Amino acid sequence: MPERLTHIDDAGNARMVDVSPKQVTKRTAVATGRIEMSGEALDAIRAGNVQKGDVLGTARIAGIMAAKKTGDLIPLCHPLALDAVNVDFGFENGAIRVTAIATISAKTGIEMEAITAVSVALVTIYDMAKALDKGMEIGGIRLIAKEGGKSGSWRAEGYGDFEV
Amino acid sequence: MPERLTHIDDAGNARMVDVSPKQVTKRTAVATGRIEMSGEALDAIRAGNVQKGDVLGTARIAGIMAAKKTGDLIPLCHPLALDAVNVDFGFENGAIRVTAIATISAKTGIEMEAITAVSVALVTIYDMAKALDKGMEIGGIRLIAKEGGKSGSWRAEGYGDFEV
Amino acid sequence: MPERLTHIDDAGNARMVDVSPKQVTKRTAVATGRIEMSGEALDAIRAGNVQKGDVLGTARIAGIMAAKKTGDLIPLCHPLALDAVNVDFGFENGAIRVTAIATISAKTGIEMEAITAVSVALVTIYDMAKALDKGMEIGGIRLIAKEGGKSGSWRAEGYGDFEV
Amino acid sequence: MPERLTHIDDAGNARMVDVSPKQVTKRTAVATGRIEMSGEALDAIRAGNVQKGDVLGTARIAGIMAAKKTGDLIPLCHPLALDAVNVDFGFENGAIRVTAIATISAKTGIEMEAITAVSVALVTIYDMAKALDKGMEIGGIRLIAKEGGKSGSWRAEGYGDFEV
Amino acid sequence: MPERLTHIDDAGNARMVDVSPKQVTKRTAVATGRIEMSGEALDAIRAGNVQKGDVLGTARIAGIMAAKKTGDLIPLCHPLALDAVNVDFGFENGAIRVTAIATISAKTGIEMEAITAVSVALVTIYDMAKALDKGMEIGGIRLIAKEGGKSGSWRAEGYGDFEV
Amino acid sequence: MPERLTHIDDAGNARMVDVSPKQVTKRTAVATGRIEMSGEALDAIRAGNVQKGDVLGTARIAGIMAAKKTGDLIPLCHPLALDAVNVDFGFENGAIRVTAIATISAKTGIEMEAITAVSVALVTIYDMAKALDKGMEIGGIRLIAKEGGKSGSWRAEGYGDFEV
Repeated sequence: MPERLTHIDDAGNARMVDVSPKQVTKRTAVATGRIEMSGEALDAIRAGNVQKGDVLGTARIAGIMAAKKTGDLIPLCHPLALDAVNVDFGFENGAIRVTAIATISAKTGIEMEAITAVSVALVTIYDMAKALDKGMEIGGIRLIAKEGGKSGSWRAEGYGDFEV
Repeated sequence: MPERLTHIDDAGNARMVDVSPKQVTKRTAVATGRIEMSGEALDAIRAGNVQKGDVLGTARIAGIMAAKKTGDLIPLCHPLALDAVNVDFGFENGAIRVTAIATISAKTGIEMEAITAVSVALVTIYDMAKALDKGMEIGGIRLIAKEGGKSGSWRAEGYGDFEV
Repeated sequence: MPERLTHIDDAGNARMVDVSPKQVTKRTAVATGRIEMSGEALDAIRAGNVQKGDVLGTARIAGIMAAKKTGDLIPLCHPLALDAVNVDFGFENGAIRVTAIATISAKTGIEMEAITAVSVALVTIYDMAKALDKGMEIGGIRLIAKEGGKSGSWRAEGYGDFEV
Repeated sequence: MPERLTHIDDAGNARMVDVSPKQVTKRTAVATGRIEMSGEALDAIRAGNVQKGDVLGTARIAGIMAAKKTGDLIPLCHPLALDAVNVDFGFENGAIRVTAIATISAKTGIEMEAITAVSVALVTIYDMAKALDKGMEIGGIRLIAKEGGKSGSWRAEGYGDFEV
Repeated sequence: MPERLTHIDDAGNARMVDVSPKQVTKRTAVATGRIEMSGEALDAIRAGNVQKGDVLGTARIAGIMAAKKTGDLIPLCHPLALDAVNVDFGFENGAIRVTAIATISAKTGIEMEAITAVSVALVTIYDMAKALDKGMEIGGIRLIAKEGGKSGSWRAEGYGDFEV
Repeated sequence: MPERLTHIDDAGNARMVDVSPKQVTKRTAVATGRIEMSGEALDAIRAGNVQKGDVLGTARIAGIMAAKKTGDLIPLCHPLALDAVNVDFGFENGAIRVTAIATISAKTGIEMEAITAVSVALVTIYDMAKALDKGMEIGGIRLIAKEGGKSGSWRAEGYGDFEV
């Protein structure tokens, strides 16, 4: 681990890390997160989803489009031309889980795109269900896998030994 | 509580709610969330913050700017011309808390702007500290207070009886 | 009809029309358009739509989000905070029809938002079906109804006497 | 031709196609479209154009800028760093024709950028002339030529055997 | 004059000023600036301008579109729905002058929109002429007039007693 | 020096230069500019900066984010995926100086990104200090160094023989 924050220069000011000396390699990142809600709200989304798919369909599009805007949203992120980003959903007990996978051939990693996709997909679900439940809570947003780049393959503990 | 998802029309398709019959009133929303990280990462941010303020300063600007982009990010949100949005930070045990307050005079509420500000500020902290800790986790993102509009004043349980 | 182009000043330069003396009134606009494609492409979309709804669901979200960006895309359009915009689809013989309705309380009309929603929804359908048919053609994009503002109610000929 | 929609995954959900295994090659696309209008509107634009060039000059800039935003507008399009995009106009009988050519070295084609440039240039002409003619109609938007990529050179029938 | 920076809160952090208690009034702002360049570059633009108008025509559109993005560019600016913004040019000795006027009915002033329009129009001229002169310099960007709001009418010294 | 404006085609219309035949090389650009203000305003920023760093910290983030939007703001600029951009400040007599350095591996230069970063950082300082001084003036915005590309290394006269 580095001893200091990579975005802070010697005088402590914010800076964008210069990636020009780094190699272009294929890089993949997987992020996840969840939104907890009342059974009533969950049922309404599930029913809507079974019939027409629009709550999760809208959140999926929102997450994909947000991944493409990561460099616009996160001040010190490099703008990246993604090879792919996809967003999936799963129903859990009292919650909906969102997982995003992003891929690129670039000099820098793609974690922020995957995390941004998950975050905005979750906020979109919140928006669409907020009339049913004001107490929903978004949590568990984190990176669970990373491939490529100098540091190679990495998996979060507790999420198994899956392949991406 | 309404019996159905307000963004879904009778055929189950996504739609933007028509707010034209609603009254313009002053509306305020407060949202919160947190990012858990290692003591090492927390210390680095705290030290940077005490000396130069740039990690949290950058996240604050990112959150404010994201609130202004809420209508661009969340598909069925109305575009709103905010009267104000502000973002604050607090150090907790093993985490940094972000709180955002947004205000507007409009026909529709401002919850999504507050939640978007919190979410993007947290993702920005993640970006700036990710070289120190790959296992950080963002959570506890939720609405804690709401003022104005037809439904009036609302407070989340467990956050006290504060005034905004 | 005015005798000159309203966006061109006396010296012939492009200019944004000053709407500050105009009244805020409720305004509505309806636009339509269609994309012609092979039976094979149409069947694939229809089948996908019946089962999962994703082609048209994605195009609907794209159209709604584009309407919110009209002022960013069309150089001399005023930025407008829409009260609502919605996008619908119908299958025709050899084509898919897109119709959008936009509503606002403002000093200026909402035609461009409705036309932008239709155009971007159609281009999105094109994008999603282009692997099946390179010869698709987008056409018939026009305004069909307008309500509100100084000029009041207007209907395009040949589209009936409907209410919006 | 593929047997299924390339943007739909096995479960029927919208997805961004992963282009990471594809080769970077030079790719070019040409798209066209037209806007029909009254003789009065056409004369006003033509006169303005001969003298000062601003209606078509504005539409040209709008088309070029929109091509750069294609990935922001069309949900499942890859963000692409264009090598060039240019937009031209021609007067036809009762209409103005817009043609756009886009070029890139990338893993995926550039058709959507050319079609987006044409569409937004046409909508911009509509915006600038709408005070003169509410009945204008945009149509004939389609791809007419494609170079590069695995499928190589393609020309639409009826547009001749031109070189790009 | 206030004794402290209005965007800094009591703890010294950046904040967006809350304009919710302020009155909606009509507000106008005029800003100006210039770009100095070699006679060769100036002649090329002037010739292009007389014949076809495209350098200044492009800069005019860029300035107008940038004014609409002011809230996206300047972190603590309120998003404002402009009533009008226009950009004009004049040839001076060794320079081109850009002047922008912006108008709105809002709770807060419109100076930043006028200054942003001038700045981006000047940077666009720079971009279009940079192959002719690498030593161009942009300067003299400032507010010259302000109308409306609590502080009323204001004129910069040395720019005469004009009416807006 | 070329004999004609590179963005204007043979018919005098605006066009985006086709960079597809150009080589990808590492390119760097440095731009600078300054904002003159009253001693009172300068002292307030300096004091704020020593304690909390927020005026210049906010302007730094605004400049970095604007550099990433250069292709969105400047009509004929190519969209570029920056390797790095950084913004620094210095206090001068009666003014604050802003300097930006941008780096990329691309087919075209990065001057516009450096100039855009400087311009928007200066406009942000203006925004944050305008309540203290309505007469501030932004000037001296120019390129001071360029590395890479076919034309190689270039330095503005009067800025010394520094290395970037």
